[in-house]
Amino acid sequence: MAQNIYDDAAFFEGYSQFPRSREGLAGAPEWPALRSLLPPLKGRRVLDLGCGFGAFCRWAADEGADVVGVDLSERMLVAARERGPHYAIRYEQADLDHYEPAERAYDLVYSSLALHYLADFDALCRRVHRALTPGGAFVFSMEHPIYAARATPEWMRDEAGRRVFALSDYAREGERVTNWVVDGVVKYHRKLATCLNALIASGFTIDALDEWTPDAEQLSAHAGLKDEIIRPMLLLVAAHRTPSAAN
Amino acid sequence: MAQNIYDDAAFFEGYSQFPRSREGLAGAPEWPALRSLLPPLKGRRVLDLGCGFGAFCRWAADEGADVVGVDLSERMLVAARERGPHYAIRYEQADLDHYEPAERAYDLVYSSLALHYLADFDALCRRVHRALTPGGAFVFSMEHPIYAARATPEWMRDEAGRRVFALSDYAREGERVTNWVVDGVVKYHRKLATCLNALIASGFTIDALDEWTPDAEQLSAHAGLKDEIIRPMLLLVAAHRTPSAAN
Repeated sequence: MAQNIYDDAAFFEGYSQFPRSREGLAGAPEWPALRSLLPPLKGRRVLDLGCGFGAFCRWAADEGADVVGVDLSERMLVAARERGPHYAIRYEQADLDHYEPAERAYDLVYSSLALHYLADFDALCRRVHRALTPGGAFVFSMEHPIYAARATPEWMRDEAGRRVFALSDYAREGERVTNWVVDGVVKYHRKLATCLNALIASGFTIDALDEWTPDAEQLSAHAGLKDEIIRPMLLLVAAHRTPSAAN
Repeated sequence: MAQNIYDDAAFFEGYSQFPRSREGLAGAPEWPALRSLLPPLKGRRVLDLGCGFGAFCRWAADEGADVVGVDLSERMLVAARERGPHYAIRYEQADLDHYEPAERAYDLVYSSLALHYLADFDALCRRVHRALTPGGAFVFSMEHPIYAARATPEWMRDEAGRRVFALSDYAREGERVTNWVVDGVVKYHRKLATCLNALIASGFTIDALDEWTPDAEQLSAHAGLKDEIIRPMLLLVAAHRTPSAAN
């Protein structure tokens, strides 16, 4: 099963301080870009894989969707329920490495920054494909493989003194043990091509990619976002279950 | 128009010494991976954009295709014709930034390591789309955007003394003037997402990506290929013109 680091008390305490934990979607600078990849949600059935504090679930429910939010962390689900009970949201605790959603039960499967914790991306793609209606959408964000390639991302200065990102091990796929909030967080690196090919092999059509970059307004408001120009940190993907003759 | 660096005498002389120039496809380590993305060619009409010395044109003609090879460089086309006249190959000199192939005239458009020289990738995608029959394939290689992001790729040592690739400027798209074989070679950097989104917006379906990595045999035979594990240098893409109701 996936490592349940979010139920680690120290991790949970640290993670809870992040802007995206405290402010929800407004604290996630990539949210406008991710939102632009979503289909209309009114009257649709939505599954959120790795729902965390439930910010997206609440937003989708407010848009008029019926929402199931799944997370491995009991602490996060408790907090999600506390942040706003909503008749249109059902939360479930499950390990995404094994979770089997109901067949053809969803119009959208969504996931924000969770899939890089899963060991088997192929299996996840097949399960999401089965869970979607034909034509249904799979929209997710993950750590960009260029960022995730090294266990510990590292910055250096080049000969001209400019800040550069030290890339390595890109083609060596597999587990990365990193120290982020706490020591020993386990995640998985896969090449970008590996991720897209897994989606295509599972029966998805790729609709759009976004190697997220802050816009000018975000850059001037948050100096730290300048690093996003140097190397991509987040990958956003929109795909849909390819309708076939067999459907 | 695109810079005609291949007709520069010094560049042409230097480029002619590369294994891929002297040995053709056998000298291009990514060729087996690129070949695996190709559809069967017997009896098909093939367009090679940036055909260079014509190695792929000759291979495709030997496979039974009718081939048009296009290149901006007169020197390369002269050499291509000298390397083997073939009744099934027609060479044309043209600037790929403006070349308009005939409509629905091809079953495959192929391009090897040429498209990063073009300023307008969107326009190229639209022209290739028009040139293909519905369902026709567009298979190409280009410099991987991670590699092409910096005008001059740079290697460094990290704190542990390991060789790392200094990535920068990834989100800053546009012209890069590099010194490769000769000074002042002009190429263009686009994010990987920009390339794929341009294909999709033009009416292509993405079939497969390959961020090429040498296999174990290639690694043991060519020590220099170890760098390919550290950062991706080549991106291979297979797509097809999405058949639509309007076809």
